[in-house]
Parts: sequence; C-alpha cells; structure tokens
Amino acid sequence: MSIVLGQNQYGKAENRVVRIYRDRDRHEIRDLNVSTALRGDFSDAHLVGDQARVLPTDTQKQTVYAYAKEVGVGEIEDFALALGRHFVNDTEPVEGARIEVEEYSWRRIEVDGREHDHSWVRTGQETRTTVLTIDGKGGAESVVSGLKDLVLLKSTGSEFHGFLVDDYTTLTPTRDRIMATSLLARWRYVGTDVAWADTYTRIRQILLEKFATVHSLALQQSLYEMGKAALEACSEVAEIRFSAPNKHHFLYDLSPFGLENPHEVFNVGDRPYGLIEATVLRDDAPPAGRAWDTIPGFC
Amino acid sequence: MSIVLGQNQYGKAENRVVRIYRDRDRHEIRDLNVSTALRGDFSDAHLVGDQARVLPTDTQKQTVYAYAKEVGVGEIEDFALALGRHFVNDTEPVEGARIEVEEYSWRRIEVDGREHDHSWVRTGQETRTTVLTIDGKGGAESVVSGLKDLVLLKSTGSEFHGFLVDDYTTLTPTRDRIMATSLLARWRYVGTDVAWADTYTRIRQILLEKFATVHSLALQQSLYEMGKAALEACSEVAEIRFSAPNKHHFLYDLSPFGLENPHEVFNVGDRPYGLIEATVLRDDAPPAGRAWDTIPGFC
Amino acid sequence: MSIVLGQNQYGKAENRVVRIYRDRDRHEIRDLNVSTALRGDFSDAHLVGDQARVLPTDTQKQTVYAYAKEVGVGEIEDFALALGRHFVNDTEPVEGARIEVEEYSWRRIEVDGREHDHSWVRTGQETRTTVLTIDGKGGAESVVSGLKDLVLLKSTGSEFHGFLVDDYTTLTPTRDRIMATSLLARWRYVGTDVAWADTYTRIRQILLEKFATVHSLALQQSLYEMGKAALEACSEVAEIRFSAPNKHHFLYDLSPFGLENPHEVFNVGDRPYGLIEATVLRDDAPPAGRAWDTIPGFC
Amino acid sequence: MSIVLGQNQYGKAENRVVRIYRDRDRHEIRDLNVSTALRGDFSDAHLVGDQARVLPTDTQKQTVYAYAKEVGVGEIEDFALALGRHFVNDTEPVEGARIEVEEYSWRRIEVDGREHDHSWVRTGQETRTTVLTIDGKGGAESVVSGLKDLVLLKSTGSEFHGFLVDDYTTLTPTRDRIMATSLLARWRYVGTDVAWADTYTRIRQILLEKFATVHSLALQQSLYEMGKAALEACSEVAEIRFSAPNKHHFLYDLSPFGLENPHEVFNVGDRPYGLIEATVLRDDAPPAGRAWDTIPGFC
Repeated sequence: MSIVLGQNQYGKAENRVVRIYRDRDRHEIRDLNVSTALRGDFSDAHLVGDQARVLPTDTQKQTVYAYAKEVGVGEIEDFALALGRHFVNDTEPVEGARIEVEEYSWRRIEVDGREHDHSWVRTGQETRTTVLTIDGKGGAESVVSGLKDLVLLKSTGSEFHGFLVDDYTTLTPTRDRIMATSLLARWRYVGTDVAWADTYTRIRQILLEKFATVHSLALQQSLYEMGKAALEACSEVAEIRFSAPNKHHFLYDLSPFGLENPHEVFNVGDRPYGLIEATVLRDDAPPAGRAWDTIPGFC
Repeated sequence: MSIVLGQNQYGKAENRVVRIYRDRDRHEIRDLNVSTALRGDFSDAHLVGDQARVLPTDTQKQTVYAYAKEVGVGEIEDFALALGRHFVNDTEPVEGARIEVEEYSWRRIEVDGREHDHSWVRTGQETRTTVLTIDGKGGAESVVSGLKDLVLLKSTGSEFHGFLVDDYTTLTPTRDRIMATSLLARWRYVGTDVAWADTYTRIRQILLEKFATVHSLALQQSLYEMGKAALEACSEVAEIRFSAPNKHHFLYDLSPFGLENPHEVFNVGDRPYGLIEATVLRDDAPPAGRAWDTIPGFC
Repeated sequence: MSIVLGQNQYGKAENRVVRIYRDRDRHEIRDLNVSTALRGDFSDAHLVGDQARVLPTDTQKQTVYAYAKEVGVGEIEDFALALGRHFVNDTEPVEGARIEVEEYSWRRIEVDGREHDHSWVRTGQETRTTVLTIDGKGGAESVVSGLKDLVLLKSTGSEFHGFLVDDYTTLTPTRDRIMATSLLARWRYVGTDVAWADTYTRIRQILLEKFATVHSLALQQSLYEMGKAALEACSEVAEIRFSAPNKHHFLYDLSPFGLENPHEVFNVGDRPYGLIEATVLRDDAPPAGRAWDTIPGFC
Repeated sequence: MSIVLGQNQYGKAENRVVRIYRDRDRHEIRDLNVSTALRGDFSDAHLVGDQARVLPTDTQKQTVYAYAKEVGVGEIEDFALALGRHFVNDTEPVEGARIEVEEYSWRRIEVDGREHDHSWVRTGQETRTTVLTIDGKGGAESVVSGLKDLVLLKSTGSEFHGFLVDDYTTLTPTRDRIMATSLLARWRYVGTDVAWADTYTRIRQILLEKFATVHSLALQQSLYEMGKAALEACSEVAEIRFSAPNKHHFLYDLSPFGLENPHEVFNVGDRPYGLIEATVLRDDAPPAGRAWDTIPGFC
C-alpha cells in the first residue's frame, strides 16, 4: 500500500473585473467575477514542491485582466472560452480548465426620462453565470450557463397535500399556500455556437412565466414544468438543473387575538428550509462528460 | 461613588412579516422586516430581575403580526406609527419607542406582456427603510425614512485632484475615474402628514439623477448636490444624511503586456474603502430631538 | 431659508493590516482591521469640490501601514492613539478623529506539546475592539474598548416570568430555559494611562464568570450584574454598554411522537430575536463628550 | 426525442438542533446543523404533482428533532447514521439518503479556575462536519467527515519560486512569505466502525502540526504532506480532500516613506484569492461510490 496524489486543480478565484466601453459618448459596462482553475499533471508541485510546471495563480489573474482589454468582454460565455482555450492550448502542462464567470447587471439611470450615457444603477437580485469546462488539449468544451438568486414568490396557486404519512408526520395538508424560492438554475448547452445573450433572456423569461402560470401541487412539479418549457423552446440546450430552497412562509396564528387569517399574514422562516434539486433533460442529450464537474468534495 | 443603570431599551428585532392583500384576484404584497424597541423605567428588571413592568419581546412580536392584519400594512411609515403609538399609549410603563421597518420590493412577473395577478420577482438591490422615534407619552414623533444598498456607478464625469499632500501621500491626481458607491440615505421629515410613498419615489429619483448629472470633483460634492436637490424638491423634509462607501475601481496596469488602458479595465477592490458621511439640512430645520438616536454605542 | 452642510466626516475604512514581529525566532503577530475618520471644516469639498483641505483617504491608508512599521503595533488602543494624534496634530484642517480598530486573535499551533515559533491558528469567535475619539486639536481623547461576537450559552439557571401581560401576550412563563447571546460589550476608559491588555483580559473574564454564575431572572439582570462587576473591578473604567441579542432556543414539542422533552431538545431560531441594550456606569463618571459618538444616522 | 426527469433529491436543510444532557448537574451540550436529502423514484411528484410517495420535508425535520431525544446525539457520524438508516429502511419509496451534519464547539466557562457545570462560550473558528451517503436499501454507507474554516497562518517557512513563466507572468519569486488559508478538509472513512471523535481530534492535530512544520515550497506541497500524514496515522481513512484558499498577505511597499519592510507589514487581500484543491489517497482505497457525491450542479 502506498499513498498517492489524486484529483487536483488550482487557480485564481473571484477576479473582480469591470470593463468599460467608451469609444462613443454612450458607454457600455460589463461587471464580472471571474474564477479560473487549471488541471494537468502537477504532481511535482505536490510531492516535492517543484513549481516548474505551475503557471502561477497570479499569472492567471493578470491574464484575466489583460484579456478584458485584448479580447474584450462580450458575452461571458465567449470570454470564458477565450480564457479557457488560451490556458489549455498555450500552456504546455495544462490539460484542462474550468472557467467560471458571474455577471452583475446594471441599468442606465434615467434623467428626464432618457437613459444616461455613463451612469448606472445595479438592478435585480439575480446573477447571470457560466461555467466552461475544457477536458484535454483540443478536447471537449462544455458550457453550462445559468442564473442564481432569482427570488420568486406566488401568493396563491400552490397546494401541498396527499403526501406520504409516517409516525413523525404532523404537517397539515393545504390547498392554498405561498410558494417562494431563490432559484439556482443552470443549463448545459450543446456546442458553443450559441446566441448566448438571447438564450439567457429567453430562458429567464420562460422560468418566470412558468413559475407564475403553473398551478403547483409541489415545488418539484413547478421546477419540472419550468425546465421542460425551457428545453422545448431552446434546442441548443440539452439539460437544465435546479436547486430551489423552499422559503417557507408560515401562516401566522392570529386566533389568540380573535383575528381571522385567511392567508393574509405570514411569518417568513430562515432555517430550516426545504431544498428541492431536480434535473430535466432530453432523452437524447449527449453525454455530459465533465460539464457539471466541479471535483466532488471541493465545491 | 456607586454604580447605576444608564440608558437602556429592549425589543424584538427583525420580525419578518409578509402581508398579502387578496380581496380581489389581483393580489398585493408587502414584505417587511420590523424591529421594535421600548424605553421607559425598567430599572427593576435590571436591578432585581422583576419583570412586572416589562412587556415581553414575544408580545411585541405578536403585536407586529396582529397589526399586520388588524391595522393593515400600507406605507411602512404608517405601520410604524400605528405600532409605536400603541406601545407608548397603551402600555403604562413604556415612555418611548423606536420602530424600524425595512421593505423589500417585488415586481409582478409579466406573462405574455401582462402583469400577473399573484406572482412576483424580487427587484432592485436596495431596501426602503423607516425609523420612527416616539419620545414620551404624547411626545414628539420623528420619522426618518430612507434607502440602503442603492448601488451606483458612473464611468466618467468624476475627478479627484488638488488635495492636501503630506509625507504619506502617494496618490496620483486624476481627471477621470470611475465613481461607485452603495448608498445609504436617510431623511428626516417634518411632521407625519406626508405622502410617504410619493416622497420616497421622488427622492430616490432625484438622488439617481443628481448622481448621474453632477460633474463630480469629489464624492462629497456629489452627495451635497444630491441632498440639496432633495431638500429643494421636498419641503416636508428637514434634513438628509448620507453614508457612502467609495467603492474603489482601480485602473489596471496593463503596461507589462504592452497594452494601453485608457480607462477601460478596472479591478474592483473590497477593502479598504473610502467612507464619506455627510449631512445636508435647512438652516431653519426644527431640532432633531431623538430622531436620529439609536442609543450611542448600541448600533 | 437656505440649505447648508451639517455634520460630516470621511476616512478609510477596514484597512486589513498584519504586523509580524520577527526580531527573534519566536515571531509575534498582530492582525488588525483599522478604520479612520477625520472631522474638520471640509465645506469647500462639499460645496464646490475643492480638495485643498482634504487629506485623501488613500493617504490615511498609507499612514496606517507606515505606522504599523514606524510606530509599531502594541496594544490596539496605543496604535489608535498614535494614528489619531498624528492626524489631528499634524494636519492643519483636521479638528477631530475617530479611529476604530478590531483585533483578531491567534493561538500558536502546538507541535509535540510545544508552541510553534511562527505558525498560528485563529481562535475564539470574538473580536477585540477599540474606538478612539479626539475632539479638537489638543482636545479630549476618549477611548472606548470592548469585544463583539462573544457567544455565550447557559443550559439552566435562567427564568422568565412575572412579566406584564396585555391583549397580545401569549408567552408562557418559564422557570427554566436556555439563555444564549452573542455579546457586544464596550467600555469607556477614564484617561489613557491604562494597562489595556490586562484590563481587557480581566473584563472579559468577569463577563464570562458573571454570565455563568448569576441566576438570571432576565437577560437584563445578567447584563447589569456583568457590568456592575466589571466596574467594581476596574476603576479605570467609567461606563460599560451592552447590546445582547436574545438568541432564542425554543423547547421542541415532541409530544406528537409520545416523547417527553424535559429541557433537552431545542430548536434555535434565527429571526426575530430579542435585543437587550443596557448601560451601567458610575454615578460620578466624567461626561462622555463624543466618546460614544458615531455621527447619529451614519452607523 | 422527449424530455425526461433526471437526477433529483429533496430534503430539509439546516435544522438547528441543540441537545442538552442534564441527567446530572454537569450538563453536556451538542450544537448541530442537520440537513437531510432523500433519493428514490419521485417521478410522480415532478410529472403530475402526486405526493403519495413523498415524505414531506417537514416530516424530515420532525424526525431530526425527535431523534435528538429518542436516539440521542453522541458523535455526529452516529447521529447521521441513525437518521439515514431510518429514512432508507423505514420509508418504502426512499432508495438513498444524504445526511449532512455540522457541529459547533463550545468550551465550558471557567469560574475561579474551575469549569462551570452549565455555562459555555463558543470556541474556535472551525466547524466539524460529516456527510453520510446511503446508496440503496441495504446498500453502501459512506461517511465523509471533516472540518471547515480552520484558519491557519505561518509567518515564515514558505517560499514560492521556480514557477512557469509566460507572457502574462509578472510575479516576483520569493524565498519568504506569509502563507495563510482557511482550510476545508474532508476525509472518507472505510466502514462505520470508527472511533469518530478520536479520529477527528487526531487528524485535526496532524493537519495543524504538518502545516506548521513542513517547510513549504507551495501550498500544494503543504496540503499533500498534511494529507499523507493523516492517512499514515489513520488506517480507517481511505482518502482526504482539501480545498484551501491562498489568503494572500501582500508585503506593503513602505519605500515611499523611507521605511524598510523586511517581511513585517502586510496588507491582507480579500479577492481574488488562489484556490488550491487536492486529493490524497491510498492506492488501494476502496471505490468511493457516491461518497463524495452531491449531485453535480446542485452544490
């Protein structure tokens, strides 16, 4: 028996880059959080501390900022592809890369009803995300994009009953409740020839609409319908995954005060929360390879 | 010499209340975080543990939820006034109250271009706030409303130069920089007969517009102009206070890579940050009394 | 009527400084978070954007790091005094300063039972703090030191009953409960000729002991006894203030499962929480001046 | 082509349980955060909203609290095993479970040098963790335990040089730097007949000692040596994984002020940070199965 090095990766996490386009009076802004991770045979760094094959994380940072100028920041998926291909193709020891990008959205401030040229206010609660995985030199490129912290609530149109009952079940079935979540949704693309921004906007809107219009018998059902609709509308997407906390809104007991509470006053709980995780995919989806892969145990 | 009890208060913090109005198909939602604090002579509770004059914090919580039904939740200032007056007027030992309310904003989900009746998505980064202070039975009522976490950025129209230089000064003056902040603004009303929502909307818009249009020689100057414009537009406001972190965006040095960086690529720092705090007020503003008063050292 | 500038201050917040002493093999470490704020007549910066009297926040940062070498970092109170006196005395327009320092504690790693020379592990949940206020050139120097996030719990020895009851009171009195808090304590010194570290250690231990040994009829009572004991033991302290969330531990109802729960199983709530704030002081305490003063509304 | 349901799980996250043992005057405390997730064929809940096979997350919560009394809370691994086996064995549709437990550590308050019977102070920055995975009825049980947020620093004994250089590399090699991290370590056990607490304590101490004593040429090397030593000492552990942010301490440039800085004054950066992830395992380690598996994309 001997002790060996297993899976490993290293990189620079959370490079906060703002890129301004100012070629004309009307500026544009891209506000990103970029993380890089490289894979390859870095045994010597671990076993004997030899860095000869290690591109420093500082260099990865410098590259991110240099690329923001050199390549430019269009859609985050394209920026990730440029970075990932560079690290894998141009650095001999690097056999794979994982590039994560978050994008924060800004809206122009309106002055006298007209959008200002160079002033913005942050908008929305949610963040747009992408993760690019490249597996081997010239190997598969997988793009998983999505959003997180999309906070949704419906004040009716949600039921929960008919569930399994055991000795520890005290929950009362309900025909009307608040359903609320902070949605994490991530979808895997087929290929990289995609209208990234357009698909993002379309899927976001579909998720919102289906959340609103599906009469829900369970958060699971809502998620499934949301995923199904997204896949039906976007042939470039093979698979979508959701992680959705059930943000419990408890009907407050006002009876001690002689008050009725016909689903009007709720206490919002922090913890514990239900947590529903589900995947919806095409039955002919190409294999995911390492697309979803952070290295297990590391995330 | 002897040891005595000084200033004190107690209450229930962060009651998370959601109030749904569902009298008609088109629901309305109010999503609040309510904190109460009571003042009075509570010496016996401290000195000998006698609770006879102490209205439990649990009761304060119950009252918040009961009032959400009984009184209803219109504007947060009115809700705070209802709660504060109740505690001070209806509870013999209570001589003063401080009621804080935060409100989270939701926007209706649009389905086929039409606003949905009972489904929402959280919007904006900022939170609307109010603090009501009542000082004595039948005493002064002060309302300080505002917003926090309003994240703003302008990509030009900001300079910083001509500053004082000492032996520790290495900063280079600049004629063009990014200016960004996460604004905390709080304004003190004269009286309580105010169109709360309307004034909130108006001030928020004025702050945005002035941030955008003032050519800034310092964050201090921007804040002053923002405050001045708000006071000029709203005679019901006596005073406005700002706390504004200067969220530094550092121009990234790309020269090692042979790249120019004409104010295009920035690194966003987390810490340290500049912190600018300023008050703008009318010279005939009535005395603030305890309006701004949390008990010093407790906040 | 005209609009004027009111109270204001500006500075550099959260300078994260680590100072290593390595004159001998056995290193020492000081790990600080330092915030500076300057006061004076900075009207021109606000009114017309003229920075001629403004020492940049960047300079304040440089000074903090330079002083970590030049003056050195002994006790945080002394470091704050060195910085504050420099800003007020050596910078013509500066009329006052507020210097806040937090210190994070480290313990040496033990190797084979012996403390290592240059390796540490962070210890404790709590942070040691100080706030120095200087009010005017050659003016009063006030030091308020303390700790925050000291998390305490006792599993018995705490009661709550005999409280005031109104129409909204449903709470059941109890003769035995868990009492838990995350303590913020801050004490005001008389003068600056103090054995800072020794007093800190002594007060921290007194707070722990009194929390443990006082049979509590209310969190208020525990706090008062803790403050009284600290003042009795430390003549250099004039006043102590506490802010203590009542971290509710709710006895879990296990009766649906045929189980008794004699104060053994608890659900810990996040929000809402009780919040108890209290001051204990000597009746001959010198006036506090601006010692406790952050500018109200800014904190 | 059709659209289908893929991997899914659901449960109740972050049940905050405190269990007091009070059979004798000297109480004991266990302070836990417990998350449950169940797997099985829950298609109908997703496809048609039928909950007949769904044990509510509320029931999972009730079970956690009931088991804290019924089974008791010894070591967190045993508590997880009791819960996981119950859900999988006693609930017909459940085919697998994932139980996560975090434990917060408390130390007895000392009064006059003696440990108090029922009063505690939270200690340490780190949290002890375990994740139990059961894969199938009567199937494999995998236990992965560990710790997180163990904050470590060494002020010398760390170098970084000899690294790969490309066009974007500007980093200066160093023979002496601060190395600091907030360690996440997780180790996979062989079997479940383990002295959990003893092994936890032993591994924690080995990690600390090796971090201190290994003269480090890279964080990777330190992690490898730490993992190797843990495996050598603990035959019941098959594999250990680390995720370690490189918390950069930048030597501050004091030369503008005519000051030397021989590795004494550092600025601590927040973002970006290096992130090193590595696995060390026995070459005859049994297959991990789903031990490390959260469902990819969900974490």
